[in-house]
Amino acid sequence: MSRADRYLRACRKEGVDCTPLWIMRQAGRYLEEYRAVRARHSFIEVCKTPELVVEITLQPVRRFELDAAIIFADILLPLEKMGIDFEFTKDEGPQIHNTVRTRADVEKMRAISPREEMAYLMDAIRLVRRELNGQVPLIGFSGAPFTLASYITEGGGSRNYVFTKSLMYREPDAWHLLMEKLTDMVIVYLGAQIEAGVQAVQVFDSWVGCLSPADYREFVLPHQKRLMASLDPAVPHVHFAFGASHLLPLVAEAGGDVLGLDWRTDIGTAWKALDYAPAIQGNLDPVALYGSREYLKRRVTEILAGAENRSGHIFNLGHGILPNTPVDNVKYLIDLVHELSSRR
Amino acid sequence: MSRADRYLRACRKEGVDCTPLWIMRQAGRYLEEYRAVRARHSFIEVCKTPELVVEITLQPVRRFELDAAIIFADILLPLEKMGIDFEFTKDEGPQIHNTVRTRADVEKMRAISPREEMAYLMDAIRLVRRELNGQVPLIGFSGAPFTLASYITEGGGSRNYVFTKSLMYREPDAWHLLMEKLTDMVIVYLGAQIEAGVQAVQVFDSWVGCLSPADYREFVLPHQKRLMASLDPAVPHVHFAFGASHLLPLVAEAGGDVLGLDWRTDIGTAWKALDYAPAIQGNLDPVALYGSREYLKRRVTEILAGAENRSGHIFNLGHGILPNTPVDNVKYLIDLVHELSSRR
Repeated sequence: MSRADRYLRACRKEGVDCTPLWIMRQAGRYLEEYRAVRARHSFIEVCKTPELVVEITLQPVRRFELDAAIIFADILLPLEKMGIDFEFTKDEGPQIHNTVRTRADVEKMRAISPREEMAYLMDAIRLVRRELNGQVPLIGFSGAPFTLASYITEGGGSRNYVFTKSLMYREPDAWHLLMEKLTDMVIVYLGAQIEAGVQAVQVFDSWVGCLSPADYREFVLPHQKRLMASLDPAVPHVHFAFGASHLLPLVAEAGGDVLGLDWRTDIGTAWKALDYAPAIQGNLDPVALYGSREYLKRRVTEILAGAENRSGHIFNLGHGILPNTPVDNVKYLIDLVHELSSRR
Repeated sequence: MSRADRYLRACRKEGVDCTPLWIMRQAGRYLEEYRAVRARHSFIEVCKTPELVVEITLQPVRRFELDAAIIFADILLPLEKMGIDFEFTKDEGPQIHNTVRTRADVEKMRAISPREEMAYLMDAIRLVRRELNGQVPLIGFSGAPFTLASYITEGGGSRNYVFTKSLMYREPDAWHLLMEKLTDMVIVYLGAQIEAGVQAVQVFDSWVGCLSPADYREFVLPHQKRLMASLDPAVPHVHFAFGASHLLPLVAEAGGDVLGLDWRTDIGTAWKALDYAPAIQGNLDPVALYGSREYLKRRVTEILAGAENRSGHIFNLGHGILPNTPVDNVKYLIDLVHELSSRR
């Protein structure tokens, strides 16, 4: 077996020779070759130029023995064609100029035709698949409806989600309409990515951890469930709700062949509580890569022990890798995971 | 029974006529009378002027039927006398000028004598007790060692806690020395507040939710346990770890007569999992106060139902009340909790 197969086999809970591993935001600022590209091109320019997307997507796969590539994109991109006007500021992350805070705002949002309107991404997916030539599988992704809703109601990142929750708590009908529109969008968006060639899809619900279980059940679950059930069953579906250990049974209920876990969740306890039904992905704290080798090895050993070498564990960080991460430790981590989990 | 008794009786799990309630950051920017004082005095000036502390501490207790007052202070204040140099900036919160990131930095930190060095606060406590004249009890508080450590290693608030965790993961001895010094400080600091007259103490571990259970057990639990065990048993100890539903069994192991819960934790499930041993405090999402009355009533009803009218529930928000909160809804909430939980 080689790195061509491990990730997809693990997604399906089939046996593997060692635990597959990829790293969230593996194509990113911690790599000097990424910074070199970004020195010449803005973030949005990179996203919309298929040749640059190919280059950046492949950088980490060339450098490290990673078991999957993930297409380089941003979760906000499809919102542009829904009528949301945003920019990526240098330091403060995404900034949305026409926030969505009323029913009228929601009604204005358009459906998208990603095959045509986001041809740059679909072209990039086809090019990456050709370049990869079967060496490792390619993952596509989207933001989850809640996380997208939180960006466009807040206007960017948020601490307390006052605008998002105010819409939920004061105008539940408008909220549900917003979630329906976003769910419809994610379904066609991931459908187009699958058609273009991605071999698995991951849905990132990065900010849903701000909700209580009762709110998740009422305002998110029906939409997330419909989304997960509507995706093409030919490719594995990964559902990653960040900071949501308190929502885990509900996230599992929403669906996903693979559930992503962050480091707050003890992987052994969580997988057992899920009756080992889904495959799981995670869950090293990205900051552990700043630690001593001794510390890093101890935590990796604990995570692998928690997963008990069962089929269906994909090693990953519990959140995106941070920009200043020491690159030597990334290589050390990848080799360590493969070595410690070797079934041969 | 009156609001003089409810809070302290509930802390001890004794019967009450209705569920007591106070609100984290109840003396704060959502009140126009608070903003009026702050228009004339800086935050730090208010903190260090006993007459202003008295005024601000009493404002919410005069306006609403709250069942406790909490002394107005900031968790960073005692750090000043340990040699930490900080200021409160207008928008970005606290900023620390001499961050603590090495063993040498930790060794320089001094022990404090809060009776003398923070006489302004002890005087304020005595004055508030006199003014309250037994009407409602007065709560004292401190930041927990981890949360204070995170501020002084990061230099302020943080998103990823890279400096805090780097110290933990690379120089565990220096980390433990830092936590020992902070634990010693919190013990004498709360001891002085109790001596001055506070009738309960709350320890805020506001940022500890960024840790995995394994890290909490190794790097925080021994210190937090020593702290909780060292506090004067004559007054109730409240232990509030925010965003830490994944750490709840460990937080309970660290101790506290009362555990604070945020809205991410289902109160009924959590209290049962704790065998109803501690009293509990919480746990409405502060943003629920921006919702419709119908929504607010539904959530309050659910929280009270979760607590099953057992002795030992103190109603509170799951985090500090937000600056723009509609004041009318605060009054509505307070009356609603008392009415719906009435045992008469």
